[in-house]
Order: sequence, then C-alpha cells, then structure tokens
Amino acid sequence: MVYVKHSVNALAMTRSRSLRRRRAAGSRTLPEARAPFILRKLSTFNVLSEAGLEQIEANADTILAETGMEFQDDPEILSIFADAGCDIDGSRVRFAPGFCRNTIMATAPGQFTQHARNPANSVQLGGDASVLCPAWGPPFVHDLNRGRRYASHQDFVDLIKLHHSLPWLHHSGGVVCEPVDLPANKRHLDMLYGHIRYSDRAFMGAFIGAERAGHAIDMARIVFGEDFVAENAVLYCVSNTNAPLVMDSHMSGALKTYARAGQPVACTPWVLTGAMSPSTVAGTLAQVLAETMAAMTLTQLINPGAPCMMGSFASTMSMKSGAPTFGTPEAGLMVLAAGQLARRLGVPLHTVGTLSASKVSDAQSQQEATWGLMMSMFAGANLINHATGWLEGGLVTSFEKTILDHDLCGKVGRFFDGIDMSENAQAMEAIAATGPGRHFLGSEHTQANFMSALFRPWTPDDNSFEQWHAAGELDAAARSNAIWKERLDAYQDPGLDPGIDAALQDYIAQRKAEKPDQDYF
Amino acid sequence: MVYVKHSVNALAMTRSRSLRRRRAAGSRTLPEARAPFILRKLSTFNVLSEAGLEQIEANADTILAETGMEFQDDPEILSIFADAGCDIDGSRVRFAPGFCRNTIMATAPGQFTQHARNPANSVQLGGDASVLCPAWGPPFVHDLNRGRRYASHQDFVDLIKLHHSLPWLHHSGGVVCEPVDLPANKRHLDMLYGHIRYSDRAFMGAFIGAERAGHAIDMARIVFGEDFVAENAVLYCVSNTNAPLVMDSHMSGALKTYARAGQPVACTPWVLTGAMSPSTVAGTLAQVLAETMAAMTLTQLINPGAPCMMGSFASTMSMKSGAPTFGTPEAGLMVLAAGQLARRLGVPLHTVGTLSASKVSDAQSQQEATWGLMMSMFAGANLINHATGWLEGGLVTSFEKTILDHDLCGKVGRFFDGIDMSENAQAMEAIAATGPGRHFLGSEHTQANFMSALFRPWTPDDNSFEQWHAAGELDAAARSNAIWKERLDAYQDPGLDPGIDAALQDYIAQRKAEKPDQDYF
Repeated sequence: MVYVKHSVNALAMTRSRSLRRRRAAGSRTLPEARAPFILRKLSTFNVLSEAGLEQIEANADTILAETGMEFQDDPEILSIFADAGCDIDGSRVRFAPGFCRNTIMATAPGQFTQHARNPANSVQLGGDASVLCPAWGPPFVHDLNRGRRYASHQDFVDLIKLHHSLPWLHHSGGVVCEPVDLPANKRHLDMLYGHIRYSDRAFMGAFIGAERAGHAIDMARIVFGEDFVAENAVLYCVSNTNAPLVMDSHMSGALKTYARAGQPVACTPWVLTGAMSPSTVAGTLAQVLAETMAAMTLTQLINPGAPCMMGSFASTMSMKSGAPTFGTPEAGLMVLAAGQLARRLGVPLHTVGTLSASKVSDAQSQQEATWGLMMSMFAGANLINHATGWLEGGLVTSFEKTILDHDLCGKVGRFFDGIDMSENAQAMEAIAATGPGRHFLGSEHTQANFMSALFRPWTPDDNSFEQWHAAGELDAAARSNAIWKERLDAYQDPGLDPGIDAALQDYIAQRKAEKPDQDYF
Repeated sequence: MVYVKHSVNALAMTRSRSLRRRRAAGSRTLPEARAPFILRKLSTFNVLSEAGLEQIEANADTILAETGMEFQDDPEILSIFADAGCDIDGSRVRFAPGFCRNTIMATAPGQFTQHARNPANSVQLGGDASVLCPAWGPPFVHDLNRGRRYASHQDFVDLIKLHHSLPWLHHSGGVVCEPVDLPANKRHLDMLYGHIRYSDRAFMGAFIGAERAGHAIDMARIVFGEDFVAENAVLYCVSNTNAPLVMDSHMSGALKTYARAGQPVACTPWVLTGAMSPSTVAGTLAQVLAETMAAMTLTQLINPGAPCMMGSFASTMSMKSGAPTFGTPEAGLMVLAAGQLARRLGVPLHTVGTLSASKVSDAQSQQEATWGLMMSMFAGANLINHATGWLEGGLVTSFEKTILDHDLCGKVGRFFDGIDMSENAQAMEAIAATGPGRHFLGSEHTQANFMSALFRPWTPDDNSFEQWHAAGELDAAARSNAIWKERLDAYQDPGLDPGIDAALQDYIAQRKAEKPDQDYF
C-alpha cells in the first residue's frame, strides 16, 4: 500500500486554473465565485416550545432506559456499552436516563471540517453551514431520452461529472446511483475511485460493513496522506438504524471503523411513521432521538471527540397503501423539531432534501422537492443528503430532476444570505432620482446592479406564451434535459496526481483479487 | 332597491345540511370539519433585524417626505390630504416624517372579520389567521382538454363552483378569471352575482373605479342587509398603486368608496423589482412601505377605524428579458420582511401565493408555487391572494394547477397547526408495547390514529412504478384533470333565498339598462 503524504496542497487548484475553468464552463456559470457551502445568515425556524422539547427529551430517555435498543450480531459493541456501565440483556442495551446525552455533550464536537482534496471545496459541518449533497442509493436512473433503467457504472461516472459541474451542489456524495453492472461485493471500490478521480469535492465513504469502511479509509489515506487522515475528517458515513430501536452489524461495523479513524458518522434513524415508528409526530420524534443518541453515544465511547452528527430521516407513510410519502406537513414538522433537538445536544444535523415519490419530473416531484429542501434549510440542517435528483421514493436518480433541484439549491443559498442592507442596496438615491411614475430600467442603479441583484435559476421559462410556443412548448423537464447534457459537455476534469492515481488503482486491484465476484452484498 | 335585513342567520347552513353535503361529496372529503381559515400555531419567520427594520422605516419616511406620492386625477383626495396638513404640489403629496405611521397606528384595526353569508365561512383577517383565496384576474383559462383559451362566463361560474368544492380554500375570491365574453363595463355585476349565487363563502368587491365599487356595496346590502353592512366587513378590496409612487383615480375611486362604507381595503403596491422599484430588496421594501402607508393613511383620513391592510406584491424581473419571475429568493425575502413591517404597523398583511411564470402545470409551476405559498405563510400573511391556479405570470387560471395548489393549501394548513403534544400523540405506550425490530402497522395506537395522524393530499401518486405504469403513467397534471372534474361534479349548491336572488337580479338589470355595452373598461 502506498501512502502519499501531504498531497492536499499539491492538488489544490490554482486561482488561474479556477478562472480558466469558469470561463470554459459557458453561459450558465455565474460571474461570482462558487460558494463551497451555504453560510446561513438567517435564523432557524422553531416548531416546539421549551416544554415540548423537554418532553421529547424525557421520552427519549424513558425509551432508552425502559425499552432500550438492540445491537445485533456484534458482541464487541455490547462489551463497549457494558464497560461504560450500561445494562446489557442479550443484545438489548438499556441506558440510565441522561447517560447518552451527557456522553455526547461531553466530547462530541459541535462543528468540524470535512476536507476535500481541493481545499477550496472543503465543507464546514455544523454551526450556520449547510452542505448540499446529491441523491444517494438509487438502483435505477432516469432521463427523458433513455427512460427508466438499471443504473450502470457509466451512469455513475456521468452523475459524478454532472454534479461536479453544478455550482450550487457542495459535495460529491456517495452512491449517486447503484452501478448494478459491477459485482455487488466490489463496486464500492469503483465508486470511491470515481469520486476521487472525477471530482475534487468532498465525498462519502462506504456505509455497509467494517471491511468496506476500511477500504474507504485506506483509499482516503492514499489521497490525503496517513497523517492528514489521522487528524482530519476526509470521509463521511451515514449510519442508519433499523427502526424501531435496532442497529445491525452491517451498520455498526462501519460505524465502529469510521469512529475509530476519527471520521464523521451521521447517526440516522430512517423511519416511516406508522410502520417503523408511531404514526404521530411526537411519538416518532422521541423514538428518533432515542435511536440517534444511542448510536452517537457509541461513537463517543469508541473514540471520544470523534465527529458525529444527529441524523433525521423521518418520512411519512400512506395510511392507505403503506407506501412512503414525501413533502408532507408532518415530515416538515419532524425535521424542524429535529433541528431544535440537535442544537440542544450541541451536534450538527444531518437530514434529507428534495425527496419525492413521483415517477417523473412533474409537478408532484417539485411540490414535494421544494417543500422538503426548504424545511430542511429552515431546520438549520448542516448536511442535506439527497438534495438533488431523487425520484420514486429513492429508487431512481433522475438526470432532469437533478437540474431542477439544483435550481432550488441555488435559491436556498441566495435566500439564506439574507437581505443586503448596504447603502447601495437601500437605493435611496435611485428612488429620489427616478421619482413617481417613471421606470427604473434605465437607471444608473439598475445598470450597476442588474448582474448581481437577482438570483438567476437555469430552468424556468419566464417568456411569453408566444415565445414559449415558438420555442417548441418545452416543459421544465424537457428544458432540463438540454441543460444536463450541456453541463456534462462542459465538465472540466479536475485532474489527479498520476502517482496517487496509480496507487489507488493498485490498491483496488489487490482488493478485487482477494475474493471472487458476488452479485449480492 | 330591496334591502333584505338580518338575512345572515336565515342563510346559515344547518348542521344536518352540512353533513349531507359532506357525505355526498365523495371519497376526497376528509372526515374532519373544514376549517374556515388557518389559525397558525407556529411563529412567523423574521429576516430583518430591529436595526434593519428601523432603517427601512426611516427610508420610507424619507421617500414620503422628500419625493412624495402622486394621486392623479382625483382633486378630492388632494383636499383630504391638504386638510390633514400634508404638503400638496400639483398632484404630488408629501408627508411629514411619522405622519403616515402615526395616522395608521392611531385608528386602523389590527384584526377584523370579513363575514360570509354562511357564518360558518366568515374569515378572520389579522392576528394568527391566514385566509387563502383563488387566482385573481387572468383573461385566459387552461385545462388539459380544452387547452389555453380566452375565459368565458361559463368558466367563471365553473371556477366558483370548483373553488366552493375545495375544502382547503377559504374565500371565493373575485375575478377568478376575466369573463371576456361579457361587456367589459358590466361584467363586474355578473361576477359579483356569481360569487353570491354559487358560493356562500366570503368574496371580494369590484376594484376598479368608484361606480363599480358602489355596485358591489349595493349588492352586499341586498344580501346582508343595510344595517349589517354598515357595521361589518362583508367585502374586500385590493387597491394597487402604480409603482413607483403613483395612485390613479381608478384605484383611488374604489378605495374611497370602500373606506367610506367601512369595507376593508388592502393597499397593495405591485412592483417588479428593477422596473417599478430598484433592483435591490432593501430599496424595493422602502418604496413598497412608503406606497402602502400613503394609501392606508388615506383610508384612515376618510374613515378613521375603517379596516385596511398592508399589501405586498413584490415580484422580481428577469434582468435578461424584463419578464416577471416568481418563486425567487428575493421575492421570498421581500414578503417575509413585509410581514415584519406590517406587524410593527399593527395592521394585517395581504400578499400573494402560488405564482408562476410557467405556461403549464409542470415542474416549474410547482417549484415556484410551493416556494411562494410557503414564504407567504412563514411571513404570517393574513390574506393570500392567488393561492391557487395562477399560471403565465397571471395571464391564465389553470384548472389543473388549481387542484395541485389546493394540495399545498391543505399542507400549509396542517403544518401551521404545529405538533400535537397530547399523551396520545406522544405514543409512549405504543413504543414500549411494540419494542425493537417490530412494526407499528398493526398496533392499537396506529389503528386508532391512522385516519387523522397524517395529512392526505389528493394529487400525489405514491404507488410503485409498476402500479403507476399499469394505471396509464399519468403525471400529476393529468391526475389533477380527473380530480377537478370529479369535484365540479360533486358541487353542492349552497342555495340562495329566492327573495334575495330576485332582488339581486332586479338590481343588476337596472344597472345594465343604464348604459350601452362597452368592450373596454
């Protein structure tokens, strides 16, 4: 295994290279520099009173003390909890009231940086920062030309390149689609390589099992250097519980590996209310808080001070069919309350974005997507997974919806920048000079500000009906189809040090040679 | 003219009639009673600091004192302002700093009720109430069967009936479309009659000119009785300024008439930033505040204590083409700041909802609509005009978008109801009884709560791809097409006292006979 140390600076883009890329990227690139993440200047929105928050916290403590949580098929975890004084009964762990909260608050950092190999793309996790990531996990992809189909490795690489070409996304993500044409037991290596090779933004590790998590850490060491990885967050793991109140060894294996390496773990109960939690918001919140606190406690017992995040992925369910539903009032209330609970714990919040159950990039898809992303932003979420592209409840990554959602990403970024109260923005001279009944189109102030005063999304058609008709009556999905192709064409390879590239390929080849291909996990 | 007094109680639906109607309305009617308006249990969202608000207010005062506002072709208004001590220069009126604010705060009510002829449908305007109204003003209508076409009187009546059949809309509105097959100078009479005859919800008056406003008040007196109208708000007028800083006699004529009759006037600057106001948010806010304060001051000078509302309809503009744009970050910031400014003035806020520049009910239409309605709700808006159906920047009322937007109306209603923290909603027994790794689908708690725990919108397809494919691969617009037809079929005539009906028809016939038809205003 070859470790290339201190490589981060060597890989940094120079200013002039960045400028060349912006020029080459065509008309859709804004003149301003890309922000590596959103730094919110507006407040968060609170939905629970102090008394309500205390009640949810007391209920979570009661759940952890009386019902407890199961950690299945992982005796090591049971010893870790036993050593910390928890009550162990088979695979069931029960926690004294306050134990989890106190353990987390004693050592978990409130804010940290996940480093990208290009330092300009490193992201802050915590505080007023919000980091937007693409879709995670879909086994299918969809675009208007090729329809709905199983995702391939080529789709995976295309999505990484597309995401890298989108200014209002901040993170390269992880399983942007599941490349099902690769062996299931080895494709994580190709996916990690894809992120490192084709993007220089931060990326996620492999989430399932200790072995794959270890591969991600090994590859990160090749890229960033062993010393750098030992001291800094360079990966990101989402660790889901199996609600209600279970964590299995696939998840706990990865959690342990990342926590030991000091890499961040977002401890994220995924629940469908009514199926995996009570059908009510208050009941679901207490269960979610119990589960995420138990998992975050584990990270701090393994490696006090290792970065961890409270995760919340609470979706609602159709009480008619049992299907997951998105963009609902209750999902909004849950993520906003989760934000309040995370701030009281002093940890960053991980959650989800533009989710939709729709099969196509239609009106439903954007009503649900807009609702979901806005609620997560108002909640003060620090990392928002699935901020673009998610369709069919997570079965599909859509190329067109990626572009539509990306406009939303840009809009929330500009919105949370708040209101410019500079003298120029107050425009008092322009108002006095224009006067009643005259227009501002030709005013000096408008001329000086028109390029920057108003955010310009890519997908809307604001033209007249007649212009729109003459242009072929394209709807927003059809216009987005042209845009993703244009962006993919405009993709600029960030380059990768040939020594690192060779070391990565060598490492991957070794791991692949160790065992036969399998078509299952 | 026949005035039928004390008719409100006589027209109230009985409980049993209401129940029969609900049963007849089919599967989409929820078992719970319809709320006549939203009573928000969550806070508003603030985007400006105390210092920022004070700056905007000081700037508005400066604009009113130094530039002033033009009141054109209406010498009576100039005398009213002169009598109050304002500075008059031609048609330009200048106001001493603080004069407008003090005049408004001295007498304008913070909250009032607009009565519907069915008292169960009366709406609160002000405080924590939000009232959602359908689209206003489009000369075209659109549906998937008949395409885009000029609106007719039949469309107008169909839209009133459709709106009356939608539980999450609260108000019958006004010009739900412009019935261009009727003479322009008389159609307001048919429109007013349509609202009174086919709905028993609150409705708007005629906005253009003193004469038509007088007709609306006459007709309201026939319905509610003269004494009742003298003491209560039963109409609603939106009075737009001609930004920047002009009010013409069409608008001031209606404003005076409604204010004298004690009927509410929403004083609403309509601006496109960059054209009718500076391109910046802070500049636009000061101008909007100046214009709305000047108009509200006029209502209070005419009739101290008459209900008035601060209106805000600040849209952005494409700096490329000059076309209006919707669902933008800046529009969101402006309405949220407007909410803060209105609360400091102690008057209710009137604003706008699901605006879109899209030509069809596609992804663009719902990204913009969702953004717009959510921002207005977070702003604490008390009446939201155009909460359903608006397309093409207000040129089109869409039947399908009405249904899509109506889901949003229901969602925001449920969302702002907040989190139920009752013992039942906390579900602690259900969590303890279910335990780790088991599901809640069959639990007693889920069975008891599944009908009410989660809001159920009408338009989403949450089914699997295979089910959706088998059902014909309908997108959300196509599904909404079936729903509006179903709702129109389910329309239940609220009935109208035959004496009132005859008196209205007689009044309308007299007014129509007074002058020849004209195809222009």
